[in-house]
Amino acid sequence: MNAKLQTRSDTRAQLIEAGTEVMLEKGYTNSGIQEVLSRVGVPKGSFYHYFESKEDFAVAIVEAFDTYYTAKINKALTDETKEPIERLRTYCLDSRDWMSEGKCKNGCLLGNLSQEMSDQSEILREKLSSIMTKRREMFARCIAEGQSSGNINPTWEAHKTAELFLCGWDGAMMRSKTTKSLEPLDGFIMLMIDKALRP
Amino acid sequence: MNAKLQTRSDTRAQLIEAGTEVMLEKGYTNSGIQEVLSRVGVPKGSFYHYFESKEDFAVAIVEAFDTYYTAKINKALTDETKEPIERLRTYCLDSRDWMSEGKCKNGCLLGNLSQEMSDQSEILREKLSSIMTKRREMFARCIAEGQSSGNINPTWEAHKTAELFLCGWDGAMMRSKTTKSLEPLDGFIMLMIDKALRP
Repeated sequence: MNAKLQTRSDTRAQLIEAGTEVMLEKGYTNSGIQEVLSRVGVPKGSFYHYFESKEDFAVAIVEAFDTYYTAKINKALTDETKEPIERLRTYCLDSRDWMSEGKCKNGCLLGNLSQEMSDQSEILREKLSSIMTKRREMFARCIAEGQSSGNINPTWEAHKTAELFLCGWDGAMMRSKTTKSLEPLDGFIMLMIDKALRP
Repeated sequence: MNAKLQTRSDTRAQLIEAGTEVMLEKGYTNSGIQEVLSRVGVPKGSFYHYFESKEDFAVAIVEAFDTYYTAKINKALTDETKEPIERLRTYCLDSRDWMSEGKCKNGCLLGNLSQEMSDQSEILREKLSSIMTKRREMFARCIAEGQSSGNINPTWEAHKTAELFLCGWDGAMMRSKTTKSLEPLDGFIMLMIDKALRP
């Protein structure tokens, strides 16, 4: 990659990073492109060298976040040093730490954008929906592995269990953000992992 | 009430009704006061005769929706012609009908505003949080009644079960909106009501 391309690619990545922070904090509609450009120190007017539109920018943010977060989830859910049910707990505790450090602000970028944008942007909705489907498969594989090894309650079908797990966690994240309390997350971990999923 | 007061009160109620529709469709930030005024046929500039601010208007919308919806939920959850577990199913099926009729658009007004506004407006956050707490109590009472009568699994504490139930349902509503499918709702009903809560 020559120097010019390198710079262009770096600036794009910096805009995505700053945009992720701003959108996580304010959502899509409340996020101003100008604020993102200012954070990176990119001159006004050059945004459209990098992205076609604000919607295109949001898709790039969601894709970058998905790449980073899918790798993180995949690492937790395939960690063979732990039993599958403990891998699910690791996933929950990591998100709980995130919420705790941030004093229950912000929540989950993809959850927030799903709630805000599913009826406003078909491109974003499709992207978010396909990420949800992919993620459900990852959780279903971990749950099925635990069911085979006798570590997770085998009476519920793995894909449906994964869907319930993710619905419950998304809802708990939202309620944690609104009540500014970790109680919904702790309640979920206690009931879902320590009771419902136990064999 | 004299004629002038009657008219003032009617107009306020009409603004709240139209505002509910617009905010359900577009969220808080994307909703324009002008659009609400146009729908009701109230002249531009008179909004502030009725509400101090857009935030004050949103609080009035949330309060009106809560009054209406709490009565509806209370009716479903205290219907003595049905076993408690069937009352929970009625609640879910009513929301499912709403999503089905609306082709999985809009979702839940309070869930949407919680996700969008919890970090943007402390007044709205407190209002939404207190509604969530009140609602959890209503569900916990129904669950405890089912546990006493042997109709609901008694091994999980009623308040924590109510929290898990509501987190799961909120998450399923969000995922239904994003995937434009009733599957997350059906999966929740099948696993939560027909498996997890069964004694």
